[in-house]
Amino acid sequence: MTGKDDKKDFRLSCPIPITEYPHIVLGHGGGGTLSHALIEKMFVPAFGNPYLDARHDGAVFDVDKSKLAFTTDSYVVRPIFFPGGDIGSLAVNGTVNDLAMCGARPLFLSAGFVLEEGLSMESLWRVVQSMAKAAKEAGVSIVTGDTKVVDKGKGDQVFINTAGVGILESPHPMTPKNVRVGDAVLLSGDIGRHGMAIMARREGLEFETEIESDCAPLADLVMTLIAEKINVHCLRDLTRGGLASAAIEIAESAGVQIDLDERDIPVSGPVRAACEVLGLDPIYVANEGRLIAFVPEDEKDRALDIMRAHREGRDARSIGRVVEGRTGLVTIRTQIGTRGIVDMLSGDQLPRIC
Amino acid sequence: MTGKDDKKDFRLSCPIPITEYPHIVLGHGGGGTLSHALIEKMFVPAFGNPYLDARHDGAVFDVDKSKLAFTTDSYVVRPIFFPGGDIGSLAVNGTVNDLAMCGARPLFLSAGFVLEEGLSMESLWRVVQSMAKAAKEAGVSIVTGDTKVVDKGKGDQVFINTAGVGILESPHPMTPKNVRVGDAVLLSGDIGRHGMAIMARREGLEFETEIESDCAPLADLVMTLIAEKINVHCLRDLTRGGLASAAIEIAESAGVQIDLDERDIPVSGPVRAACEVLGLDPIYVANEGRLIAFVPEDEKDRALDIMRAHREGRDARSIGRVVEGRTGLVTIRTQIGTRGIVDMLSGDQLPRIC
Repeated sequence: MTGKDDKKDFRLSCPIPITEYPHIVLGHGGGGTLSHALIEKMFVPAFGNPYLDARHDGAVFDVDKSKLAFTTDSYVVRPIFFPGGDIGSLAVNGTVNDLAMCGARPLFLSAGFVLEEGLSMESLWRVVQSMAKAAKEAGVSIVTGDTKVVDKGKGDQVFINTAGVGILESPHPMTPKNVRVGDAVLLSGDIGRHGMAIMARREGLEFETEIESDCAPLADLVMTLIAEKINVHCLRDLTRGGLASAAIEIAESAGVQIDLDERDIPVSGPVRAACEVLGLDPIYVANEGRLIAFVPEDEKDRALDIMRAHREGRDARSIGRVVEGRTGLVTIRTQIGTRGIVDMLSGDQLPRIC
Repeated sequence: MTGKDDKKDFRLSCPIPITEYPHIVLGHGGGGTLSHALIEKMFVPAFGNPYLDARHDGAVFDVDKSKLAFTTDSYVVRPIFFPGGDIGSLAVNGTVNDLAMCGARPLFLSAGFVLEEGLSMESLWRVVQSMAKAAKEAGVSIVTGDTKVVDKGKGDQVFINTAGVGILESPHPMTPKNVRVGDAVLLSGDIGRHGMAIMARREGLEFETEIESDCAPLADLVMTLIAEKINVHCLRDLTRGGLASAAIEIAESAGVQIDLDERDIPVSGPVRAACEVLGLDPIYVANEGRLIAFVPEDEKDRALDIMRAHREGRDARSIGRVVEGRTGLVTIRTQIGTRGIVDMLSGDQLPRIC
């Protein structure tokens, strides 16, 4: 009897109601409300510590006399090779970018491979070479690693985890808490390329111009803004859930409202066409080489000049601003001039996009 | 034509002969010669840097004014719950131990989950709670994380990657290069529990006494040796490939011969019985809470006293010594007094053991 009661108590102690969600669904990894519930209700309370509480792309802490940033991501993108990149370049740039979003200079990466029995050696070699090239371009060293192999049918070719260590270069930790009413929201370039490159490949869509992923390292762009003494309040790369999810997360964490203007958000012709075919809104589509930066209004023009002079920010725009209003609300002025509310997606708009 | 030649050149450039190994096999993750070939021929040259060249459980480097250690491991153990632990406690202790083997005090961990669609929420909750408990016991904080979900049939319940950051406490980096002829080889306790706990569960073997995994954090034991000023030359935890692989790897890296004595190596009755049933030699079986330490002969007795006073080293023994002889050779004096050579296993003795 005791065992049965214990089991019942255990089930009741689960912070995600087991009766409602007895199993993990794809949406728990999609960057929307289900992902958030898992993080906020289960992981953060269970592992509870002040670093996790910052709710950022990485943790920032002091070790000895140094201020470091530390972050991790697992990559399960499918297909593993896609226009503009592959799971290897993605695994390096994704983690490099998460460190940069903390205001840190990426230094060292780890690489953990979970290989499926039967993966072609040639594919692994291509992925490894791509990682080496991306690491060189981003100026980081892959210093430690691990390889596991799972039986055929228990994995999917290759999953890669990278964790990264960097040194904080910004004068203050860049967290959503620093966002202020009046801040301008700057976007580094056109959105939707990565998600649409993957989806077009998966769905067999063909356009006149092939859509290439925007997969790129953003650390140098961020270091340049810091070196030029732009007082960047907060940064976020626009991965799973896209621009919309990034803006909502920051509005919630910062306790502010953010107003965006769709007419200022660049979307390339092929991405727009692919989104229309698939019935998707580009503001929800994943990017792997785009960021938003929150800067004081009076530094906006100088910040844009610096970004536009950089390879990874040449199409930078100001796309909105932080206003007083309702905490966590993100609004968007549409192409036709009406203003709507940007909702967090519940699940996975595009599964296994990164 | 060019494309075809390029493809041929690319295949020829692969450092693992594609004609011989066209695909990844389970042995590439097993810790034996196939794993080693992948690491030594592909990963190390491709990512080439001095940190990887140290061939250790983790990388040690300077950041700013601090000397840090950094390591990663992915955990794919099956079943995810086993006597004495689960994939969660394993993922924390395994990475804590890899940091400790560098002579570092573990401080911060990352956690990257790859969940299979359909995993029961209850299982995830059990694993998360187990990780939190193990982290608390080992004195580390899980400060950053990531969750991905893959479609049903493309994963196996849950894979966890943990990376860890620690601060170097030993006066010198503990690498195999410090091993000296004359060093004593100390073993912290009886071997084979983890591997046999998993195999007994998988094979449905039942013994009078259930075999429990030795899964435990070893950092405090290592920090105690360092605090007591034992001049530890090198440490290695006895995971995949067991005592045999650890000894061979160190003999190779250090350029020495190691002589072991089987009569001094403790193996519990149930582990010995299970090994006999399955036709395995306990020196190849994985452990998750055991280490070998190389110390100068004249510090051996004091080191053993310190280890035996510690919970994780109470059955510590001296099991052999480093001798002049053939580089990379490990010999063992058997129960009946003859001396044999310990070979590196080619593949995976026990797949998905960690």
